[in-house]
Amino acid sequence: MLPFSRVTIIGLGLIGSSIARAVRLAMPTVRLTGYDADPQVRETVDRLQLCDDVADSSGAAVIDADLVILCVPVGAMGAAAAEFAQDLPADAIVSDVGSSKAEVARVLGEALPGAIVIPAHPVAGTERSGPDAGFASLFHKRWCIITPPEGANPAAVERVAEFWRRLGADIEMMAPEHHDRVLAVTSHLPHLIAYTIVGTASDLEEVTQSEVIKYSAGGFRDFTRIAASDPTMWRDVFLTNKDAVLDMLQRFSEDLTALQRAIRLGKGDDLFEHFTRTRDIRRGIIEQGQDDPAPDFGRTHD
Amino acid sequence: MLPFSRVTIIGLGLIGSSIARAVRLAMPTVRLTGYDADPQVRETVDRLQLCDDVADSSGAAVIDADLVILCVPVGAMGAAAAEFAQDLPADAIVSDVGSSKAEVARVLGEALPGAIVIPAHPVAGTERSGPDAGFASLFHKRWCIITPPEGANPAAVERVAEFWRRLGADIEMMAPEHHDRVLAVTSHLPHLIAYTIVGTASDLEEVTQSEVIKYSAGGFRDFTRIAASDPTMWRDVFLTNKDAVLDMLQRFSEDLTALQRAIRLGKGDDLFEHFTRTRDIRRGIIEQGQDDPAPDFGRTHD
Repeated sequence: MLPFSRVTIIGLGLIGSSIARAVRLAMPTVRLTGYDADPQVRETVDRLQLCDDVADSSGAAVIDADLVILCVPVGAMGAAAAEFAQDLPADAIVSDVGSSKAEVARVLGEALPGAIVIPAHPVAGTERSGPDAGFASLFHKRWCIITPPEGANPAAVERVAEFWRRLGADIEMMAPEHHDRVLAVTSHLPHLIAYTIVGTASDLEEVTQSEVIKYSAGGFRDFTRIAASDPTMWRDVFLTNKDAVLDMLQRFSEDLTALQRAIRLGKGDDLFEHFTRTRDIRRGIIEQGQDDPAPDFGRTHD
Repeated sequence: MLPFSRVTIIGLGLIGSSIARAVRLAMPTVRLTGYDADPQVRETVDRLQLCDDVADSSGAAVIDADLVILCVPVGAMGAAAAEFAQDLPADAIVSDVGSSKAEVARVLGEALPGAIVIPAHPVAGTERSGPDAGFASLFHKRWCIITPPEGANPAAVERVAEFWRRLGADIEMMAPEHHDRVLAVTSHLPHLIAYTIVGTASDLEEVTQSEVIKYSAGGFRDFTRIAASDPTMWRDVFLTNKDAVLDMLQRFSEDLTALQRAIRLGKGDDLFEHFTRTRDIRRGIIEQGQDDPAPDFGRTHD
């Protein structure tokens, strides 16, 4: 038994188009409808035949859906939901893929009063954007965190969970506030730091931008990947998970100041001790299959 | 004509053992001698047959060399050089692979008065350490920066350059002070930031270490790779390139404070503008072949 038979995807960028591709492979009998506010994206999705139907309005897209997944930047969720609210079938489940969950739950609740909303967040992505960038295996062995609102219907939650399992994801349940703190440290702070350091490097006067690029293999290039992520998506993440991000940032700044002081005072033992314990975390990530065990992310050196 | 015929490598970790492997492939007639202060490393190098000879002392290792390359942590360079100073042939060239150059030039000059010292820095590596971690193609299409002292013999510089070209590297010449500022931003600051954030994440109370590992695919895992680098090597880099690192860190902190303020005040346009311009740097790195063009560093998603 498939968890859903008529799935509508609103927003067909990297994540939305990857869901479409994965549904096609894993649940080929599902009727897939897509909508994107950008006519060019709709055209691309049509050309690539990623959906059975590409609708001209989000209202038309949801009208007979049993699952609607919002795959738009988190700052656009409220408006996108309000747009199809009148046309949403009463028994349809609405979900999303947003990277901050408390704020998204609030705006979806406001835009869709009385609707069944089960927010989710597949922890997966690449630095690319748009419907051409998606691929079916994006969610394979990645975590999908579901943040059901209090009092959510367990059967509805289970259907959303089963949908993501079929796309290859592993499921975890979390309160939205806890999700936002966990992701603030595992995703949002790293992106902010990466965006910052790439900006700092490109502003230097006496070291040229071409030198920064040329010698980036010393470590810098790793940061440029996530600093190439979608600017709209990330602006919205920071604005909608402000408190948790600012708190993590404060802790990070304190730790950085401590290392800065150790360097200034020549405290080699403090540096060595700090640099030693961070190795264990990498080991844990490799052991749990959350990254490539090959050195240098498996980059080829030939 | 080979640039050297009897090469001695002092320190047989990731870089030293990679040089040995690469010399074997590119210049098979070169007589390779190795020495490492750690008897276990010497045993491994012997077992893997990475060198023609593994000497029991660095003095014995250099005694008939025409090139001696120091591949030890930068903080150990002075002592390592002093150890073989008495046995170094007068016409031998001494080079190194250290990540900070002004300080290394100073200590090598002190330890080896009158010797021909041509420092170099191959901008290449992985997060692994030790002789088992090396591989012959590590320097392929990577930059090797040579920082000749003032008045260096051009023929000696050219022989070191040719040696690295044969190992697959591209050559650049730089003043040691400029090298140290360029690498402070492209390598040292990124490592410091990565070590910091991984430490911050592992110290959190309400988000557990297992959650940090589990959801690391959201961005955090990228930082754990370079934060798994050799602690001794990196302690020494920060202590020997203190001024440039502290200056870059100051600029980074100012930029981070500006973004923090934009988040706190909800200035979405400022965030968007910043996140947009950092994309260009990534593009430059890909175009110049300094990173894998595939999304997500080419990680497999299957």
